Amino acid sequence: MSGPTSQRTQVNRLRELQQTDRAALDEVLDAGNVAHVAVVDGEQPYALPMAYVRDDDRLLLHGSTGSRLMRLLAEGAPACATVTLYDGLVVARSAFESSMHYRSAMVLGRCQAASDPLDALRCLTDGLLPGRWAEVRPTTGKELAGTLVVELPIDEWSVKVSGDDPEDPPQDVALDIWAGVLPASTVYGAPRPSHDLRAGIPIPPSVRSFLARVAEDNAG
Amino acid sequence: MSGPTSQRTQVNRLRELQQTDRAALDEVLDAGNVAHVAVVDGEQPYALPMAYVRDDDRLLLHGSTGSRLMRLLAEGAPACATVTLYDGLVVARSAFESSMHYRSAMVLGRCQAASDPLDALRCLTDGLLPGRWAEVRPTTGKELAGTLVVELPIDEWSVKVSGDDPEDPPQDVALDIWAGVLPASTVYGAPRPSHDLRAGIPIPPSVRSFLARVAEDNAG
Repeated sequence: MSGPTSQRTQVNRLRELQQTDRAALDEVLDAGNVAHVAVVDGEQPYALPMAYVRDDDRLLLHGSTGSRLMRLLAEGAPACATVTLYDGLVVARSAFESSMHYRSAMVLGRCQAASDPLDALRCLTDGLLPGRWAEVRPTTGKELAGTLVVELPIDEWSVKVSGDDPEDPPQDVALDIWAGVLPASTVYGAPRPSHDLRAGIPIPPSVRSFLARVAEDNAG
Repeated sequence: MSGPTSQRTQVNRLRELQQTDRAALDEVLDAGNVAHVAVVDGEQPYALPMAYVRDDDRLLLHGSTGSRLMRLLAEGAPACATVTLYDGLVVARSAFESSMHYRSAMVLGRCQAASDPLDALRCLTDGLLPGRWAEVRPTTGKELAGTLVVELPIDEWSVKVSGDDPEDPPQDVALDIWAGVLPASTVYGAPRPSHDLRAGIPIPPSVRSFLARVAEDNAG
């Protein structure tokens, strides 16, 4: 797979922002943790926020067996999962050129229930917080029965990255108007222990490593 | 308007997280700047990331007249705009109870082209960066012709807020496993002047006020 695979995922607007290599897609997918999944119920489309993780060539999406829309997804209704990372405001000299820095990935296809739900839950748990699966107590059969993890194959997709300076034309650059970028990032505060946490239980390795990695990414 | 107005916007899963007052909805909508808009083209739903702003009882969504999906929206195809703010990870003692802190708002309806596009562009510009409209050079007729702003009335909606500690049952609390929350927020770095910014142009009031307000919100 080396690029978008259909007319449906060809970016028409701002085409110069489109990336076509799979590594660019994975970079966006691996940096996010909430996807908005479009699915249609009757005539009405919905955009559902869902926790997700990329596992090789599939997106694992997490929901509940009690959700009507999750069941539609699991039954293979046409779907679109979009992940958008907001990276800041582009402050141009005109309203027209003002915009945002973002990275956005879109995957089209049909989901199916994950073939190995326990393994999918492991992927999700470790995807959101690497190393956590080994620290939590084992998942019960009842919990597994109440969880619906669906997978969306990654084969029809597009990715778009906007990260440049404002593109004001020369006559605007000549004006006495400031222009630039206000870079945004997601940061984490100090871990807040649960109100019912028993005394003497230290912050686990998963949390320590995660916070260290986020801090490092933001510094870089 | 004091709550969700249809069965379609009744939250079925984790119903205790649903808020039903309009103020809660506006708080989420006013804190975000990217919506994911679901729209259907043929059988395929798409979730499109779009810059937006709330203006009283409507969402203004910004796109280009050249986009097929934007035109579908402007023509009144059924749509759903979802805004999700990610607030952190909930680290429970089991994978099953592990989740996220988030605030999410969903607005269902049909869009139409904004009646006064110039005013809509002003709302968007000042919504994303308050005070900026007065600082940029005036919008041209040609720019206006190339911009499509649609509005989605806010009358069928839902809002869900997850902000609590993990809800581990007593038998899990008794285990020697850490639990808590890793709170996340969006922060802005120092403004990066454009490479073509002429010397002697100071950072404008809009940018200064915006960064001060974000810093204050994050401190509070």
